[in-house]
Amino acid sequence: MKSSDTFLSVSRRAMLSAFAAVAALPALFPAPASADLAGDPLPSWNDTASKKAITMFVERVTKQGSPDFVPEAERIATFDNDGTLWAEQPMYSQLLFALDRVKVLAPLHPEWATTEPFASLLKGDVKGALAGGEPALMKIVVETHSGMDSVEFNQIVLDWIGSARHPITNRLYTEMVYQPMLELTAYLRANAFKTFIVSGGGIDFMRPWTDKAYGIPPEQVVGSSGKTRFELRDTKPILMRLPEIDFINDGPGKPVGINAHIGRRPIAAFGNSDGDLQMLEWAKGVGGVRFALLVHHTDAEREWAYDRNSSVGRLDKALDVARAEGWTVVDMKNDWKQIFPFGSK
Amino acid sequence: MKSSDTFLSVSRRAMLSAFAAVAALPALFPAPASADLAGDPLPSWNDTASKKAITMFVERVTKQGSPDFVPEAERIATFDNDGTLWAEQPMYSQLLFALDRVKVLAPLHPEWATTEPFASLLKGDVKGALAGGEPALMKIVVETHSGMDSVEFNQIVLDWIGSARHPITNRLYTEMVYQPMLELTAYLRANAFKTFIVSGGGIDFMRPWTDKAYGIPPEQVVGSSGKTRFELRDTKPILMRLPEIDFINDGPGKPVGINAHIGRRPIAAFGNSDGDLQMLEWAKGVGGVRFALLVHHTDAEREWAYDRNSSVGRLDKALDVARAEGWTVVDMKNDWKQIFPFGSK
Repeated sequence: MKSSDTFLSVSRRAMLSAFAAVAALPALFPAPASADLAGDPLPSWNDTASKKAITMFVERVTKQGSPDFVPEAERIATFDNDGTLWAEQPMYSQLLFALDRVKVLAPLHPEWATTEPFASLLKGDVKGALAGGEPALMKIVVETHSGMDSVEFNQIVLDWIGSARHPITNRLYTEMVYQPMLELTAYLRANAFKTFIVSGGGIDFMRPWTDKAYGIPPEQVVGSSGKTRFELRDTKPILMRLPEIDFINDGPGKPVGINAHIGRRPIAAFGNSDGDLQMLEWAKGVGGVRFALLVHHTDAEREWAYDRNSSVGRLDKALDVARAEGWTVVDMKNDWKQIFPFGSK
Repeated sequence: MKSSDTFLSVSRRAMLSAFAAVAALPALFPAPASADLAGDPLPSWNDTASKKAITMFVERVTKQGSPDFVPEAERIATFDNDGTLWAEQPMYSQLLFALDRVKVLAPLHPEWATTEPFASLLKGDVKGALAGGEPALMKIVVETHSGMDSVEFNQIVLDWIGSARHPITNRLYTEMVYQPMLELTAYLRANAFKTFIVSGGGIDFMRPWTDKAYGIPPEQVVGSSGKTRFELRDTKPILMRLPEIDFINDGPGKPVGINAHIGRRPIAAFGNSDGDLQMLEWAKGVGGVRFALLVHHTDAEREWAYDRNSSVGRLDKALDVARAEGWTVVDMKNDWKQIFPFGSK
């Protein structure tokens, strides 16, 4: 299938960029001081304070004998996904996935023609459908993400992510990833960090493609979830996806999700919105050298510019806390040489 | 502290046994056929059918170019804990932990003197307390595992596991681990498997010590859980443990827990009771070479002998399924040369 070939080739490209960063790194370990000689692990980052803060943190916690040294097993780094690792404008990809699913499933649900939020959606009125707020949104997500088993859902996601296009750039969603963040995750892994995604997005919506897109395997993805039930279909064991929310991994839910899935506190956390505030607070909330970073979307030309008043990826309180606490705030426009692997919006 | 020294030394011993098995292994990779020449990775296993089934499975899935070859990333192995990795007789260790906690907490709960199941417990009548069945048990677990934050609970578990003694052998619980299973987990890891614990026991009861005892880090432990809530205590972020069950990771819950935490299906699963049946079915429930093993407790002299009628670790239906399906059933008495690192009960 063409779409799947394209997906694979995009992913390969992303992986290769990541590997390129890694390839330059091994020399770092025997002689951390000669890092620059061995090549820049973060070539898409300008030489600004953000980049310096990242590399200084990594050098401090990885230097044997340093008072700030952190054993490899404890080098846990957590990344938000939407707006931190890939673009979230003009709408979360998972919502677009859900809207596409509504269209696919509509023939099986004649009642949707007269039931909100589906009726509005099917008339193409997304704004009207979402006027119902979070309950409407939850209804859409629950209805479109349940009623099949886990293997079937996995395939549905793979088919969609391999063919659906971003409404503005017309790129595959897996192309809408941030090149500097690919380099950053690879740089951390090359320094023996274990990288996790900790997202408000659906855990089973992300897992089918995060390894290819970011080098982060399914067992290192934490997200929101629906309930599943073990059943025997004839004699075959399946996990049926139920129309019931299990856990919302957002805001104060993120430290809860981190504790449930990882059982260790991250020493570095990366986000971009108020939904990431508590994760960053949790990472910073103990002694020792800890790192917290917010991606601030400041580049309307190459990406999008938004913060305090955005309905998607609102960054308000967390920005104030970050500035008060001296966390690293990435100014996308000035800190990033390149935005996407393909360039700019 | 003496108790903590002892814990560390026991753990070190367990780790060393595991490492000893690993140390002999690297030669396996370049030339799998010469495994025996390089040393036996499972020295505490007799040369019976069980051992042969394990090594044949590992050789098939790790041999490059073989039709049964499984890429390293997909080599997921899941292990039950109680009765599979360590002894569960005469009572689950976590229950003994909870009973000890009841005694510690009693002064703070004068009402327990007249409230069941606590009243019976405080009179030393464990049997009477547990006559209330699962609700009584849940009440004990919930009351003793909540009301503190995650960091405090972690320390409570570490203090207990470092000093509490098995009621029959008077050994530390971390000594009551099965030497052949330590070798097996190390053997799998040496063959690029990722080993997970998937237990009905409490996830936060296991995580503080599984890395030292088994070489399995916290992020690879799946278990039953209580709810937690993110809070700021003054300005310090904490995860408060609430008196509410979140998830019971037992029986049909095990595939659900595996899917939630790992997001991949194991290619090998190891258990010992009916509570592991669905996990083993899930592992075996797709095409390709898959491995399922039950530890059958048949050695009353060196350990304990129990199966169909046991109240702890009942093995009834799963034994029938295992025999009908040709799963590997370990006969502890005949298959294991040695039971515990220190010898026998």
